[in-house]
Amino acid sequence: MTSPLRFEILKRDAGSGARVGRLYTAHGIVETPAFMPVGTLGTVKAMTPWELTSLGAGMILANAYHLFIRPGVEVVGRLGGLHQFMGWSGPILTDSGGYQVYSLSRLRKVDEDGVEFRSHLDGRRLFLSPEGAIDIQHDLASDVAMVLDDCIGNPSSFDAARASMIRSMNWAQRCRNRFLALHPSRQALFGIVQGAVYPELRMESVQRLKEIGFEGYAIGGLGVGEPVTQMYETVSQVAPELPSSKPRYLMGVGTPADLIACVARGVDMFDCVMPTRHARNGWLFTAEGHIVIRHSRYKEDPGPIDANCSCPVCARFSRAYLRHLFISREILSGILNTIHNLSFYLDTMRKIRHFIESERFSELLTAEGAQ
Amino acid sequence: MTSPLRFEILKRDAGSGARVGRLYTAHGIVETPAFMPVGTLGTVKAMTPWELTSLGAGMILANAYHLFIRPGVEVVGRLGGLHQFMGWSGPILTDSGGYQVYSLSRLRKVDEDGVEFRSHLDGRRLFLSPEGAIDIQHDLASDVAMVLDDCIGNPSSFDAARASMIRSMNWAQRCRNRFLALHPSRQALFGIVQGAVYPELRMESVQRLKEIGFEGYAIGGLGVGEPVTQMYETVSQVAPELPSSKPRYLMGVGTPADLIACVARGVDMFDCVMPTRHARNGWLFTAEGHIVIRHSRYKEDPGPIDANCSCPVCARFSRAYLRHLFISREILSGILNTIHNLSFYLDTMRKIRHFIESERFSELLTAEGAQ
Repeated sequence: MTSPLRFEILKRDAGSGARVGRLYTAHGIVETPAFMPVGTLGTVKAMTPWELTSLGAGMILANAYHLFIRPGVEVVGRLGGLHQFMGWSGPILTDSGGYQVYSLSRLRKVDEDGVEFRSHLDGRRLFLSPEGAIDIQHDLASDVAMVLDDCIGNPSSFDAARASMIRSMNWAQRCRNRFLALHPSRQALFGIVQGAVYPELRMESVQRLKEIGFEGYAIGGLGVGEPVTQMYETVSQVAPELPSSKPRYLMGVGTPADLIACVARGVDMFDCVMPTRHARNGWLFTAEGHIVIRHSRYKEDPGPIDANCSCPVCARFSRAYLRHLFISREILSGILNTIHNLSFYLDTMRKIRHFIESERFSELLTAEGAQ
Repeated sequence: MTSPLRFEILKRDAGSGARVGRLYTAHGIVETPAFMPVGTLGTVKAMTPWELTSLGAGMILANAYHLFIRPGVEVVGRLGGLHQFMGWSGPILTDSGGYQVYSLSRLRKVDEDGVEFRSHLDGRRLFLSPEGAIDIQHDLASDVAMVLDDCIGNPSSFDAARASMIRSMNWAQRCRNRFLALHPSRQALFGIVQGAVYPELRMESVQRLKEIGFEGYAIGGLGVGEPVTQMYETVSQVAPELPSSKPRYLMGVGTPADLIACVARGVDMFDCVMPTRHARNGWLFTAEGHIVIRHSRYKEDPGPIDANCSCPVCARFSRAYLRHLFISREILSGILNTIHNLSFYLDTMRKIRHFIESERFSELLTAEGAQ
């Protein structure tokens, strides 16, 4: 099979694992390191597709679990796939749903065959197998599919973490088999490294995934409550062991500082609900740290969220107006806050790429105090 | 005083009272007949200003009562006025708040001096006088201000309607006096015809307003539960008596058919919450009547809301997707539905203007079955 996903590395940082690259998908080119806005239910919350495009979003993430439950994958498939369904012509990566089955569903029962669970919406009994997860993502027709993995709590014992990792690797092999059997011409499949915070388990997981072979490799099971230093340590251990010519994706992480720190450790792709969810709660990112827009100190503040931000919200609206919208529970509050926070994240990625390209990434690391 | 509001009539329909014109304001030209989207709290709900602009919205309406209560007019004033506050550089008409004091506030007490009421948000005791209503709108710096009027319930007796109308006319005079004393260089003031459904009261009100003299004339107290035929009848009586060279504004009305019918009776300007409020409730306008998007019949409907609509929502999204967003309570549901419904209204106005200009307005009246 010729991979539909070509990854090209344009520049490597001399002093760290950071690299600038391009991911070529059937729906366009993604500049890496990239941040993917999260569009769980087939919409990046509060954003029209054209607003996302104008912010410079490349690839977005959608969630197979959520679309499986509502409106149903067969519906999306009959309507022409996820791109057509959500009116987004850019690249889409779908999460397999392993993490959501773990975090959202009720009465989860895992065995070698897959995971049985009840819908978090209506209690319906559902079953997800590794093959099923691939079939679902095939019907959704995303550009990048993810293997189904088994997620466990944090902290977990070595033995529990090992059993779960082994299961995830067996599932990864079955996902790959099913994926190859389907002969997708426009979809790639990423494996997911598991093994909790145990270096030897992580190494074993990396080895297994490399033997199977994927178009890209994700690091899963982080950002689930472990200390941030442990997260960085795990990324430091895992990333260099992954095939250098393939994209590396750190799932569900994190703050702007995390992005810079993990790019330095060799990560190319990120997703996180933080910018969009925080936006709706009135928590806004600035270069000087966050602001909580509902605070009364902003009641008559004529300044923008961040004087150095070039987003359309900072160009036009005062903190006083944004506070008024938040207090009044206006829909526009969620819209404008999301535009700003996503801009802040996407700007951070542009800055990262620019500093790597101009051989000044170490300055950025120092300036941001990244660990 | 030279009026900052020039109104030019470009074409009159031979067979009805309809006319096409242009309203020149300090913030741009409004093509009439015009529909003004309602931006009660300093935001047309779910719309960014640039989305509104791309839909071709001209003038929008904001509400002095709501901004008076939250965030406070002095705050908006200190922040540079309403245009700057809400990031809208087009024309704005402000309602004086008379209707909202009537419909929303508690413990309303009206006498000749004005109206005392309690805030619908926190019960604060507030007072609005005719002069105060002008001062507030002066601070908001809208392009068109409205006089404070006394609103009464429907139905109401002749005597109650007459007393209320007389009070409204006394207030109109006081509003005009205050307005002239302030010497606004960029604001116009409209009078409001009252008199419920009693023709002789309406005529007396028209006479009083013409004696005072305004830059434009509104018809108030309609669309408050009276039969639609009675509403049309009142408009038919009142509109021809208003100065032909000045814009005529029918407040708070109505359906697309109402707009056509009342343009035929000589109305130039409209506002109504219907397109935006219905949008958020999933009630969508089409040329064939409305659809209720949550219905299960749309679950797999691949078609657009309205096949003949040229709005960006109909160009890109299926009914199935819009239903999915509505059922999932996604913010994007309110956004996309509002874009469509406002487009439908603004398209209706474009169609009206086009048919008047091309001397075919009677065809439109017939086609729409307007009364």
